Order: sequence, then structure tokens, then C-alpha cells
Amino acid sequence: MPASENAKLPPPFHAVIFVSQRTPGDNGYSDESARMAAMVKEQPGFLGMEAARGPDGKGITVAFFESEEAIRDWGRLAEHRSAQASGRASWYDNYQIYYSRVERIKSWTKGPAH
Amino acid sequence: MPASENAKLPPPFHAVIFVSQRTPGDNGYSDESARMAAMVKEQPGFLGMEAARGPDGKGITVAFFESEEAIRDWGRLAEHRSAQASGRASWYDNYQIYYSRVERIKSWTKGPAH
Repeated sequence: MPASENAKLPPPFHAVIFVSQRTPGDNGYSDESARMAAMVKEQPGFLGMEAARGPDGKGITVAFFESEEAIRDWGRLAEHRSAQASGRASWYDNYQIYYSRVERIKSWTKGPAH
Repeated sequence: MPASENAKLPPPFHAVIFVSQRTPGDNGYSDESARMAAMVKEQPGFLGMEAARGPDGKGITVAFFESEEAIRDWGRLAEHRSAQASGRASWYDNYQIYYSRVERIKSWTKGPAH
């Protein structure tokens, strides 16, 4: 697997760190989550995304944006607001969002021989 | 599961976002990873940590620190440096580290009735 393209962005930029605990069962989460992932890619100022979720339902998504304004616009988008409401009603037990500014990046990829 | 205690920290503080792709097999990773998690908790200026890794081996760990100095000291600790070397030799295919500053936090937990 290649190193993330995200690592090549020049800082500073913004990172929204979304830490969440899923409830049991899918309840439409997978479809809506894929739809939101496709939609955020079209959002002006969106730079990239990283996500991981463990078998215990604990997940972290980090979305990178050019500006605070881009984050606010994405947060207020009608379809995203509707997904947020479904998240609180059905998909998440709890979540924390850390609005951050990325100041520098270090990146490493294993070489072909070692 | 309760909301993370980390959500109660007052910003601003620092977040080190570590995105990594594991190689197949354990190769001593689990033991060393647990040892490092215990050790960072003793590090002056450490505030908390969140982590998730999916079945594909892609993982995100976010460690929160009071200052850049605390991050630097942890990065330079001899036992941590040795773990970093093992990471590059055996455990990771690639990783990216985003050094960030957390500016604000939003937190939500499902209420008892809904």
C-alpha cells in the first residue's frame, strides 16, 4: 500500500479529528457513511481524509481542509446536517470532535529492500 | 461506553496524529505497543490518547500533549526511539505524522432516554 497522498500537502492547514463510538448494528450507517465520504470530496477546500475503525466500534476519522470556512460550510451543508442527526439518533453512542491546525508533517515509507 | 475523558481538556493544546499501515503478523508489536502506551502516560505534559485500527491494518492514534516541548521530549526518549526503529524495521509499511494544535472541541454523548 502506498503512503497516503495526504502526507504531501504543505502545512499549515486544518484537521478535523472525529473520534466516535458506534452503536451495535448497521442501521443504514454504511450507505450513508459512503455517501458522505463521496460528498465531502466535492466540498471546496477539502484536502483529504484518513479513517480507521476497530472491531470494538471505536473509530477515528481525520478530515483535512484548507480553511476554517471550508470546515464550517461542510458542517452546515443540509445533507451533512441530516447525516449528523441520524448519527446522534442511531449510529453513535458518543463522539468528540477536535478542531485542529496542522503545523508540520513527517512521512515515512518502507523502501523496496531492507 | 462513556465519552472520552480527553474531551474535557481545555484547548488550546497539541495533538500528534499518527496514521500508520501495519505489516502482516505481530512480530512483537502488541507487547511493545502496550509498553509504549503505558510509558507515554508517565510523560510530563501528556494529556490523553485515542486509537483505532481496522482489520486491514490501517490505524490512527491521536496523542494529546500540553506543549511542543512535551512532544519533543517524548519523541527523543531512548526507549521510544528504540520502538520507532523497530516500527520502521518490522511493524509499519508506511506512516504519516501530523503535528497539530487543537483549537476547540465539540463533544456529544447519547442521553439515557431517546
